[in-house]
Amino acid sequence: MSHLEKLDGYFTENRERHLAELNEFLRIPSISALSEHKADMLSAANWLADHLKSLNIENVSVDETAGHPVVYGEWLHAEGKPTILFYGHYDVQPVDPLNLWETPPFEPAIRDNKLFARGSSDDKGQVFMHLKMIEALFATEGTLPVNVKFIYEGEEEIGSPSLPKYTEDNKEKLAADLIVISDTGLYAKGKPAVCYGLRGLTGVQIDVRGAKGDLHSGLYGGGVQNAIHALAEILASFRDEHGTIQVEGFYDSVRPLSEEERQAYRDLNFDEEALKEEVGVKELFGEAGYSYLEQTWARPTLEVNGVFGGFSGEGIKTVLPAEAGAKITCRLVPDQDPEEIVSLLKAHIEKHKPTGVEVTISEFDKGKPYLTPFDHPAIQAAGRSYEKVYEVPTAYTRGGGSIPIVAAFDEILGLPVVLMGFGLSSENFHAPNEHFHLENFDQGLRVLGDYMHEVATIKF
Amino acid sequence: MSHLEKLDGYFTENRERHLAELNEFLRIPSISALSEHKADMLSAANWLADHLKSLNIENVSVDETAGHPVVYGEWLHAEGKPTILFYGHYDVQPVDPLNLWETPPFEPAIRDNKLFARGSSDDKGQVFMHLKMIEALFATEGTLPVNVKFIYEGEEEIGSPSLPKYTEDNKEKLAADLIVISDTGLYAKGKPAVCYGLRGLTGVQIDVRGAKGDLHSGLYGGGVQNAIHALAEILASFRDEHGTIQVEGFYDSVRPLSEEERQAYRDLNFDEEALKEEVGVKELFGEAGYSYLEQTWARPTLEVNGVFGGFSGEGIKTVLPAEAGAKITCRLVPDQDPEEIVSLLKAHIEKHKPTGVEVTISEFDKGKPYLTPFDHPAIQAAGRSYEKVYEVPTAYTRGGGSIPIVAAFDEILGLPVVLMGFGLSSENFHAPNEHFHLENFDQGLRVLGDYMHEVATIKF
Repeated sequence: MSHLEKLDGYFTENRERHLAELNEFLRIPSISALSEHKADMLSAANWLADHLKSLNIENVSVDETAGHPVVYGEWLHAEGKPTILFYGHYDVQPVDPLNLWETPPFEPAIRDNKLFARGSSDDKGQVFMHLKMIEALFATEGTLPVNVKFIYEGEEEIGSPSLPKYTEDNKEKLAADLIVISDTGLYAKGKPAVCYGLRGLTGVQIDVRGAKGDLHSGLYGGGVQNAIHALAEILASFRDEHGTIQVEGFYDSVRPLSEEERQAYRDLNFDEEALKEEVGVKELFGEAGYSYLEQTWARPTLEVNGVFGGFSGEGIKTVLPAEAGAKITCRLVPDQDPEEIVSLLKAHIEKHKPTGVEVTISEFDKGKPYLTPFDHPAIQAAGRSYEKVYEVPTAYTRGGGSIPIVAAFDEILGLPVVLMGFGLSSENFHAPNEHFHLENFDQGLRVLGDYMHEVATIKF
Repeated sequence: MSHLEKLDGYFTENRERHLAELNEFLRIPSISALSEHKADMLSAANWLADHLKSLNIENVSVDETAGHPVVYGEWLHAEGKPTILFYGHYDVQPVDPLNLWETPPFEPAIRDNKLFARGSSDDKGQVFMHLKMIEALFATEGTLPVNVKFIYEGEEEIGSPSLPKYTEDNKEKLAADLIVISDTGLYAKGKPAVCYGLRGLTGVQIDVRGAKGDLHSGLYGGGVQNAIHALAEILASFRDEHGTIQVEGFYDSVRPLSEEERQAYRDLNFDEEALKEEVGVKELFGEAGYSYLEQTWARPTLEVNGVFGGFSGEGIKTVLPAEAGAKITCRLVPDQDPEEIVSLLKAHIEKHKPTGVEVTISEFDKGKPYLTPFDHPAIQAAGRSYEKVYEVPTAYTRGGGSIPIVAAFDEILGLPVVLMGFGLSSENFHAPNEHFHLENFDQGLRVLGDYMHEVATIKF
């Protein structure tokens, strides 16, 4: 019986128990962005640590940081074999608007072989797959084909502010041959992908203040600047009507797409009609001159994530608002530098600041974009493992999302990163009704187990 | 002893009791815009009705409407004398942001001879002055020099949706020679004003929808329209950088200011530096080519009163928002028509709608602008009453605010309207820490009492 057949039997037999354990993990509301969930963050970290210990993982610790803790563990008894450092995150996104969830975000529910819960796909469900793959290898083979280390953080959804320092401080402990991250997606249902690049992230909050307090729009209206109107003018100034970002210098350090890459993307025959159907829009909108895949994989963005100011309750309030604010984030591509982009944003805002208001800019955490050579043996081996289980060719893609820590790992540890994800883009990450297709939970466990054997044959 | 001396004695002697009664009225949180305050609206109406009855006012009723009730009362025993219809409103504005109030909005507090409470100035405090003036005349003279009727509504702050029908239905009952309204302000501290014109009001809510739900800004960002960004572009399109409104046809029916009016405004020597200090801005901002008084008295506006969309909590959420909305109101001047302006706004929004979103427009209630001939004897008499008490010349002004019902009274009842207000523009109407200068409460009572005698001599 091949190792894959043995794994298959084990996962089939234990599926019900595995899902019950995952539900335990998903029930912990570990929202890193909201300070009232600080205790839940610790609960989630402890749950992970306890689970690692139960799997024969050694030197397990819940390590304090300036923010939420990091969970570490290791098993290093495969002498002479490569070492994989597994990374993931146990924190999740906020859940508002709560009224749009069909079942509560922290009460996991299976419908149509999909597991609905905040974090089911991003990223608790995928972190949990690492653990169950280890459990299955020990159970079916009594040992592991490679050495493994685990590092799970609780701040990915807020830009991983503490992990770079932790990584720097624990360089020796984290030494490995490659990093495996499961926080990306398949190319499409039934079509696996290894992701060789990610966008970076940077962002600012813009706070606009006019008068020292809200004013009566009858008495003062027409003679004193309106903070919301001033903010809207700043926001509108960021783009032209074709979606091209107007911040001076914004595109200067963008690495142009090669004709080869553009052709590879075209060959994927991306279905724009299906996308429109999926997200519910009549027409797509993005930077002129680029295809949808290019826009979302290889071009930078500037998005307004939130806006607030004045009266937003029921009915009308004829107020001339004194304050307004917006949260902006940019997805960055190689070789844009997050610090430099923030400087350009600040200069743009200063230049476009309307009369009669003061503007304050606060910076959010930053993450660099990242690109891995796609012919690296660890990348190619991942493609093979997918093909064995999914039985179709693997797509080599780039991801539009950001995993800021990937660039930090690259810089600090100097390791290749293999992004082996099992999500689907329709799974509502960061939105109401997040879910995870259980067929990819099932197949992904087998892919990960096979990959351990693939890596065992690589000479680093 | 003159009637003014007698009133003076009475008001001095009863001041403490009067303020205690006013505080009772102010403690009722009669916020018309919020449906959870429906019961409080009825309490405030009943309080007023009971108070009118206690003053010998006859035929007092709390009349149901489609919205909040109207309070009516009358005293018609001054045979052969003119009849004044007093109007005011017992509803108040919402109180958010609550944390900016130094003392709670519905717990009246006196500091520095100013009465702090929501409604202290706009308009419960001034409505209460009508009542106490009547009480004082009965107490000191045993009768009233003119006939009086009272009509107090509970929907002024939401655009008086029910009062035009009520007025139409009760035309006979409301017949009078003039209408007196105390809901405007002095020109400045110590400098009284009779207001001969008011701006009208119209407004819309703009709701923008992109995708059917919020999306992950990494996965979709750059290829799907952002609802907030689209909204910001619509809002920015409403004005140019000089504050001139860009809605086609918006200014077409504006009655131009005469050179005489512009000169009269210049003669008031409006202190722009003091205004900047008062509202806390370094520079004013309004339509190019007009002075501040012209901008706020005689020119129309387009203000964003509120904006909302996406994530506005603590930290960042990298969401591509599917929905965003804004509340817009316009202050209108003669001869702009609210219905026509809404049509122009709709056409503008339709024309400036960005790609990839749907826009829904909802209309708010409307009020026409109004102008009274300023040489009308009832206007001039009001000026004289102010001068007797304040001992300085009265300014004849226009008001930037809207009392939509004024235009409706004009249309339905065909009566001159005398706007005799006692507020000050620094009193934070519609904002936190609304207050009323008690010196104007005291002097205003005497002005109103004297005006009853002035009106008794006018032949209508």
